[in-house]
Amino acid sequence: MQRMRLRDLGIAVGTLPAGPLNAITDVAGIRVGHETILADQPRILRTGVTAVLGGDYDYFERGLFAGVHCFNGFGELMGTSWIDEVGLLTSPILLTSTYSIGAVRDAMLADPRCHGVRGRSHQPVVGETNDGLLSDPAGRIEPSHVRRALDAATGGAVPEGGVGGGTGMVAFEFKAGIGTSSRLVATPSGLFTVGVLVQANFGARRDLTIDGVPVGRQIGYDQVDSVRRRTDGSIIIIVATDAPLLPPQCRRLAQRAVVGLGRIGGFGANTSGDLVVAFSTGNLVPIATEQIAADIRMLPNNQMTPLFPAVAEATEEAIANSMTAAATMRGRDGNIVHALPLDTLRALFHPKPESK
Amino acid sequence: MQRMRLRDLGIAVGTLPAGPLNAITDVAGIRVGHETILADQPRILRTGVTAVLGGDYDYFERGLFAGVHCFNGFGELMGTSWIDEVGLLTSPILLTSTYSIGAVRDAMLADPRCHGVRGRSHQPVVGETNDGLLSDPAGRIEPSHVRRALDAATGGAVPEGGVGGGTGMVAFEFKAGIGTSSRLVATPSGLFTVGVLVQANFGARRDLTIDGVPVGRQIGYDQVDSVRRRTDGSIIIIVATDAPLLPPQCRRLAQRAVVGLGRIGGFGANTSGDLVVAFSTGNLVPIATEQIAADIRMLPNNQMTPLFPAVAEATEEAIANSMTAAATMRGRDGNIVHALPLDTLRALFHPKPESK
Amino acid sequence: MQRMRLRDLGIAVGTLPAGPLNAITDVAGIRVGHETILADQPRILRTGVTAVLGGDYDYFERGLFAGVHCFNGFGELMGTSWIDEVGLLTSPILLTSTYSIGAVRDAMLADPRCHGVRGRSHQPVVGETNDGLLSDPAGRIEPSHVRRALDAATGGAVPEGGVGGGTGMVAFEFKAGIGTSSRLVATPSGLFTVGVLVQANFGARRDLTIDGVPVGRQIGYDQVDSVRRRTDGSIIIIVATDAPLLPPQCRRLAQRAVVGLGRIGGFGANTSGDLVVAFSTGNLVPIATEQIAADIRMLPNNQMTPLFPAVAEATEEAIANSMTAAATMRGRDGNIVHALPLDTLRALFHPKPESK
Amino acid sequence: MQRMRLRDLGIAVGTLPAGPLNAITDVAGIRVGHETILADQPRILRTGVTAVLGGDYDYFERGLFAGVHCFNGFGELMGTSWIDEVGLLTSPILLTSTYSIGAVRDAMLADPRCHGVRGRSHQPVVGETNDGLLSDPAGRIEPSHVRRALDAATGGAVPEGGVGGGTGMVAFEFKAGIGTSSRLVATPSGLFTVGVLVQANFGARRDLTIDGVPVGRQIGYDQVDSVRRRTDGSIIIIVATDAPLLPPQCRRLAQRAVVGLGRIGGFGANTSGDLVVAFSTGNLVPIATEQIAADIRMLPNNQMTPLFPAVAEATEEAIANSMTAAATMRGRDGNIVHALPLDTLRALFHPKPESK
Repeated sequence: MQRMRLRDLGIAVGTLPAGPLNAITDVAGIRVGHETILADQPRILRTGVTAVLGGDYDYFERGLFAGVHCFNGFGELMGTSWIDEVGLLTSPILLTSTYSIGAVRDAMLADPRCHGVRGRSHQPVVGETNDGLLSDPAGRIEPSHVRRALDAATGGAVPEGGVGGGTGMVAFEFKAGIGTSSRLVATPSGLFTVGVLVQANFGARRDLTIDGVPVGRQIGYDQVDSVRRRTDGSIIIIVATDAPLLPPQCRRLAQRAVVGLGRIGGFGANTSGDLVVAFSTGNLVPIATEQIAADIRMLPNNQMTPLFPAVAEATEEAIANSMTAAATMRGRDGNIVHALPLDTLRALFHPKPESK
Repeated sequence: MQRMRLRDLGIAVGTLPAGPLNAITDVAGIRVGHETILADQPRILRTGVTAVLGGDYDYFERGLFAGVHCFNGFGELMGTSWIDEVGLLTSPILLTSTYSIGAVRDAMLADPRCHGVRGRSHQPVVGETNDGLLSDPAGRIEPSHVRRALDAATGGAVPEGGVGGGTGMVAFEFKAGIGTSSRLVATPSGLFTVGVLVQANFGARRDLTIDGVPVGRQIGYDQVDSVRRRTDGSIIIIVATDAPLLPPQCRRLAQRAVVGLGRIGGFGANTSGDLVVAFSTGNLVPIATEQIAADIRMLPNNQMTPLFPAVAEATEEAIANSMTAAATMRGRDGNIVHALPLDTLRALFHPKPESK
Repeated sequence: MQRMRLRDLGIAVGTLPAGPLNAITDVAGIRVGHETILADQPRILRTGVTAVLGGDYDYFERGLFAGVHCFNGFGELMGTSWIDEVGLLTSPILLTSTYSIGAVRDAMLADPRCHGVRGRSHQPVVGETNDGLLSDPAGRIEPSHVRRALDAATGGAVPEGGVGGGTGMVAFEFKAGIGTSSRLVATPSGLFTVGVLVQANFGARRDLTIDGVPVGRQIGYDQVDSVRRRTDGSIIIIVATDAPLLPPQCRRLAQRAVVGLGRIGGFGANTSGDLVVAFSTGNLVPIATEQIAADIRMLPNNQMTPLFPAVAEATEEAIANSMTAAATMRGRDGNIVHALPLDTLRALFHPKPESK
Repeated sequence: MQRMRLRDLGIAVGTLPAGPLNAITDVAGIRVGHETILADQPRILRTGVTAVLGGDYDYFERGLFAGVHCFNGFGELMGTSWIDEVGLLTSPILLTSTYSIGAVRDAMLADPRCHGVRGRSHQPVVGETNDGLLSDPAGRIEPSHVRRALDAATGGAVPEGGVGGGTGMVAFEFKAGIGTSSRLVATPSGLFTVGVLVQANFGARRDLTIDGVPVGRQIGYDQVDSVRRRTDGSIIIIVATDAPLLPPQCRRLAQRAVVGLGRIGGFGANTSGDLVVAFSTGNLVPIATEQIAADIRMLPNNQMTPLFPAVAEATEEAIANSMTAAATMRGRDGNIVHALPLDTLRALFHPKPESK
């Protein structure tokens, strides 16, 4: 069966409407680029880089308000000390493999789009999850790969599953990788979009629950085998919105991603790096200026509540999409990670559609 | 229909086994006491205090390792600065009304069981949620009430619903209050118990989801009316375990309560105080001594993962119990908060039991 | 010798200019009120309340951006969960005794200026340090005292030493209490004021160092006796500025107070509650509105550095003023706490003035 | 004049006794290794790596309790999410250049001593400050350099100044780099050692104050020139102790380093990465075991206070040593960074020795 998105199966998470693309790129200005690395010689590589850019501006001159949240800390999301300190995202966000996060970070310092050429230091934002089950850890990502992921960044539909940084990832013992989703949120101040993109690489099959339906427990190992039965792993979650949020408000969004992660079956296992960064495109914040910014926009906190379930729903659906879009992959040491069987998934929801 | 616990309806949350009492008191040594204040003259009072004690020892000499987590901060849990600083619980935990938390705190300083008599300062731990919908905010809790809640603290089954600090509370637009649940967890080092007690006072009906079933959306306002349709409110969650955990490990448990809270329909609305304290009875930690403690016990982190879903499940079920056990209550200004209809709840799960 | 301020002795901390009042009230709109409670019958009371108000507006409609920092957590600063969550101060700040913080908190809920009358909950901000050495812990502050402190709040010079919440406090084994100071800061965007007010109740004499001069070690117990030789104790520090700072920027200021605290001889002893709240009057932030705020002002982070030493200097000098302004006091159990000897202090700096 | 340590000039910080080496290696088992990279062709390199190892054991089997503190977040200290999560240091600590932190991190994953060979992921701990003033940012550190720094790690006296990761660093506009110091602390439970090692690269000359003496203001630019007059920059501080501390206690030590940093003239300038990691060698903590650890040792919190000024003093003196030991260096673009003039420094303290 062709890989597709959860909604193509007639299944949706929650009750809020998705944006036109049901992707993080529904937030105006967000661009996503993937560089997928698949090789069998000289090493078996199933790895890559994904770049998420908040806009097409100069990060040295303008930043976006942002906040981070750590649900479980066995992972690395570089640049979070600075986001915590000033509540600003001043870098593209790159997602990659555990084994290449350092190389990707150093490459960003040398790329003009990441403003490394000027000899001024900045704080690159790079997150990782571990693709060592399918990809040879000795194979490192090169600066050219980072460059291509940045070059490829564009709006529009976002390729999902085993692409970019998600190439070699596994979730709930099924092939996974990159997934995305969005929600439209009505507030008294108008309509806003919340978009989520994940690099999912965590979870035991028995815990997989989609929109309340215990899916994983109903797909036995006799039906779909699993090369490694485990509960650990990691996920990096990126939340974006056009609602004009200040830094603490972005941090609140980041924290709400845990609700979606929890609903689909995550609980932050011991050696899991479950890290979230949230940012708002609602203000272009001057960084290097001699003037006071006088026109910062802020959604009052009493209008924030509707954004919270939107983050939860989009996070859950993005994780689901990372699996439904991913095809079975064979990698190093003959390891095969099977795709989530879509016909079974659809059948599990069959008695349910009319109740929504 | 008689109020009862969720399991009395043939419904359970998750897959892990509960302890014999399915209560926080399954953790050996934990005692709970309620003081319920119901009055119609001179003021209409539907308020009270609940005391949770980690043991029967002297808090000045011994403490318990503990950690806290804030999911949303519109609430007060006094004493958390000290728990954060040293990772020790050195006080009973009291739950009460927003309007009486100060009185309860000061009363603790004067009670010998809270070691106030010695003229040494300590940091009382008191949490609150707002019972102003049913109880007159001008009515304050007296030191004698606090004393009685502490006197009443005992092991065994825990009264739930509209009792103690939970007397005037409302969750998902149904009458709620105190709820509790527990789980047994197998690890390589042996069997441990995780117990949760909540004071639940949050949520919009439409968001109520129990074990994946969207319960709230299926109980219309024509069937059961609601005096205030809202999404805000607060919850205080207490997590206890006999697993010998160090402070960061307790904090990890506290954070996992968010998973259970999210699964039942919480997402930390803007004016919600969603605060968690977790502690371990696995060590009695010397506080005032001239010797190095040499026999602290610690569960290695690689054995912690099974505790995490246990916290999530027990939190979700404790919240459910706070409603199923609570009867309809009439309070100030003629406000009536209706009970969650148990026959409807049971019917919603009827098609489901064989799938578990 | 008459009690006076540090600068009246020809001594100043650091190199930045102070504001006209050298007080937190140099920040336009800040008002301070003290209620001092001195009684010998029926109990010996040396206690009180100090109110610091960010302005004369309705806290339900407007708030001020704020941030908190905990240097050591053996103390209570109520309301910090909410400040942390949204970065807003929506309450006056009250300072009082450990033994009355609950009473003061509950009283604020009933005072219209703290908007308690509307039946809407809010999060009062109240801090405490322990005056039990001089004041009988059984004597509680009444709502009328809180009311009077709020009524008394005014701009202009701020009474210091043993007044208000600082009445019974002790620092570096000398009589202390409330102290304040300010600094003027030049930035490319213009001149701003940083003001600090402390309630100081910490420190061992040997550690007292003013502007680099080891003062405490040079005042022997034969010269000035000490009823309790200790290193613990607490301090609440309030930092205010008219620089238009967002919440993370306020938190940065709060954290810099530790530099001033450290320079004068503090290091956060084990049972010390060293808590800081910082806020900016640069924006009146709408809380309950259906519109997006569109004119929030923000000082770019690259202009913040000059504010940091200003906070450090003003904190150190405010602590010094809390002692130089405080007179010897006799309290409960015949305990006498002596004043810092000003002639000795002046003599210690005598060889130094020309070097500055 | 020969470069030397602060104490060789007859100057000491504070009042507590230093250990025999006055270095972090006074804490038994701590080893330090430097790899210094000096090249003029093809690029001008003034860079390197410093490795600090807590012991000679297998990080996969045993860890050390640890805690972190961020004073200002414009910097990267990789691995802190995991230290925060479980309170364990499970990696050597490496210090290097901003431009090579990624390369160093990836290299650690491939080094058996950092247990990268087993295909199990871990969380390397690597910190950075920016040596771009003297060293060409395009020159990257190689895995072989990391290996050599790890190979070189040994107990005993620690080379200071422009060596290892500190090779190209600048503090208070003088040549700086690596510095170390220690203090002996008496507690009721016995004598403990606190050791500090810094990689110092921050500060404006006018703010340099050693043991209370305003040194920097008294060394004019006519006497010693400065290629860049600035207040920003960064510092990584490592605190080690043999006192048996649990994770929250380690975090408390980390936070106290700010006191020493503040006393010497730091205040966390805007673009400064001031990050601290503290760990205790008092327990070898099992990580991968099926048993409960039953013999964890813990210094009761009421004995911790004496450790706090020890951290402050050792931090201040370590920073001072990073300058007194460093010789003038010429680097890229003809930039020369001058050494702190030791004869002037000694003269400034001359009137002072008898007062201590």
